[in-house]
Amino acid sequence: ATTFRASEHQHIRYNPLQDEWVLVSAHRMKRPWQGQVEPPPLKTVPRHDPHNPLCPGATRANGEVNPYYDGTFLFDNDFPALQPDAPNPGPSDHPLFQAEAARGVCKVMCFHPWSDVTLPLLSVPEIRTVVDAWASVTEELGAQYPWVQIFENKGAMMGCSNPHPHCQVWASSFLPDIAQREERSQRAYQSQHGEPLLMEYGHQELLRKERLVLTSEHWLVLVPFWAVWPFQTLLLPRRHVRRLPELTPAERDDLASIMKKLLTKYDNLFETSFPYSMGWHGAPTGSEAGANWDHWQLHAHYYPPLLRSATIRKFMVGYEMLAQAQRDLTPEQVHYCLGQKDRETATIA
Amino acid sequence: ATTFRASEHQHIRYNPLQDEWVLVSAHRMKRPWQGQVEPPPLKTVPRHDPHNPLCPGATRANGEVNPYYDGTFLFDNDFPALQPDAPNPGPSDHPLFQAEAARGVCKVMCFHPWSDVTLPLLSVPEIRTVVDAWASVTEELGAQYPWVQIFENKGAMMGCSNPHPHCQVWASSFLPDIAQREERSQRAYQSQHGEPLLMEYGHQELLRKERLVLTSEHWLVLVPFWAVWPFQTLLLPRRHVRRLPELTPAERDDLASIMKKLLTKYDNLFETSFPYSMGWHGAPTGSEAGANWDHWQLHAHYYPPLLRSATIRKFMVGYEMLAQAQRDLTPEQVHYCLGQKDRETATIA
Ligand SMILES: O=P(O)(O)O[C@H]1O[C@H](CO)[C@@H](O)[C@H](O)[C@H]1O
Ligand SMILES: O=P(O)(O)O[C@H]1O[C@H](CO)[C@@H](O)[C@H](O)[C@H]1O
Repeated sequence: ATTFRASEHQHIRYNPLQDEWVLVSAHRMKRPWQGQVEPPPLKTVPRHDPHNPLCPGATRANGEVNPYYDGTFLFDNDFPALQPDAPNPGPSDHPLFQAEAARGVCKVMCFHPWSDVTLPLLSVPEIRTVVDAWASVTEELGAQYPWVQIFENKGAMMGCSNPHPHCQVWASSFLPDIAQREERSQRAYQSQHGEPLLMEYGHQELLRKERLVLTSEHWLVLVPFWAVWPFQTLLLPRRHVRRLPELTPAERDDLASIMKKLLTKYDNLFETSFPYSMGWHGAPTGSEAGANWDHWQLHAHYYPPLLRSATIRKFMVGYEMLAQAQRDLTPEQVHYCLGQKDRETATIA
Repeated sequence: ATTFRASEHQHIRYNPLQDEWVLVSAHRMKRPWQGQVEPPPLKTVPRHDPHNPLCPGATRANGEVNPYYDGTFLFDNDFPALQPDAPNPGPSDHPLFQAEAARGVCKVMCFHPWSDVTLPLLSVPEIRTVVDAWASVTEELGAQYPWVQIFENKGAMMGCSNPHPHCQVWASSFLPDIAQREERSQRAYQSQHGEPLLMEYGHQELLRKERLVLTSEHWLVLVPFWAVWPFQTLLLPRRHVRRLPELTPAERDDLASIMKKLLTKYDNLFETSFPYSMGWHGAPTGSEAGANWDHWQLHAHYYPPLLRSATIRKFMVGYEMLAQAQRDLTPEQVHYCLGQKDRETATIA
């Protein structure tokens, strides 16, 4: 019988954090691509555009005028998917028609007053102010809501509707689906193995050294064993930390610095402003914040869509939507184009 | 207290088939869109291109020459994500690093010899030959594999890498994630309520008449109560049918006809060849095919990405990737642009 090699032979891998399987098919990258080529990234963005509602001094959709902010700037989303006062749908009349109340708030956080920068182009102290703002908004909204989802959609390819550097914060009265899955998995792992799932996972990746992208005094960046997107990464503190506000000043500085390194690597991969969706997951908040959430470990997921170049992306369609996630190269192969024809694969580590 | 109205107030809905929640936020459609506009659909596709590996008479990547087929044509995918003989990864050394064997086959099915047609442009008898080919391939591959996933990625926007009308068939040695979820949900519903989940669901939608798009003697098309994509639909036989091969000749003819109607509606919505991913789900096959799968009801899912026009799509990013699916209009509102400025919303029914 042939010896199994992950880099050659298709197999399925289990995501123990989100309780999902992914089909890993090495070498599908070689298939010819006659499909969609993405539009080239935006032409130059002006540093300041008085008509852009995210800019300092601009008037927003609701008539409010933005201050001339010079660091980060947090405000209510003018088109919120979640509002604080939606009425309750009431009991459902049939088990197949279940609706429940959803309350919350949606905020937008600008990272910087300039529209023509991105996180990796900011200085480490500027990124540190973003980290502090993430911690504060978690604290502020987490006082009331059980889940505070901070996420950044970067790049038009990721559905970002405004080029100004910003993220969003959606706090909800319910634990969203993925939060529920991570809650179940981490709780079960802790009760079975006596330690947090992601603490043990980070420890194992440090020993195995196969999927590490970056390490620093306080943080790890790795391509998870169960990664779905071609260049997906997981950002983890080394210490057991449940939520963003618990990070020490030293951990925050180090986070700003490792984020700058990671995002610069992404940008350099295909020599483009790398698109992605990213977001933070930490222990639930709200009225139950005081319960025992020690099975949780704070982490951020980075999900970038690019596959082969700045204009050829991975499509999660068809089989992925109907059956199961599938990737075209292994997490260990993480491939990039150095512009040298003879150098086909390399790790981004 | 304000009275709850689904068309005005955000809420969450439960998908009992796939055990997932969706956040429904009516009126998010009104937000301004400065984000990505999709490239316009492909320029004219030639009816025959000898260099297109899906055309009759063309030479494929593996050197094989396609026959001059005149109906449907089924062949092995030259870049398969699943192959019949991949070795087993062996036992895993750690619960957080689990990999398992994945075996299978990937086939491509051309619907018609011409590259410049799509399913809704075929005649009903021509679509009927596609239905028969779907039933046969399910039978053929289902003899060996527990899951036969038929799916069509249509349009460059859906990652379709070749404009020739075709679908794919990926058969696997394992039940993919979504199949497992549907299996669990349908089994649990049957044991609790004594009838198949989707039989009762179709029955309820016929009574409620709020989300029906099309009905015929043997079939129903509806926007499911828990739909995630703006124009998502579910196609169901009225009779209890577990798998495609069980369909009678009359049901197959009627299916061809209702598919032509549905796909024509989609195309007319934004006056474009409507992109989508679609696929069939039926009871598991393979060596366990003889077990009791009466809780299963055959169905097809249609997941089209367009939201506001032929070039503005819904992005499932950020919140959706990190937290939970979210939609910008209710399933009951299913909106379309009739080209009349004063007519903002209408049902496609
Ligand atoms: O097989 P194709 O058409 O080359 O590729 C397309 O469908 C596959 C199965 O849904 C996906 O994995 C690919 O990302 C997509 O581009
Ligand atoms: O809120 P935005 O930037 O207008 O919109 C973007 O992010 C949202 C949250 O991830 C998504 O629901 C939208 O589909 C996407 O286009």
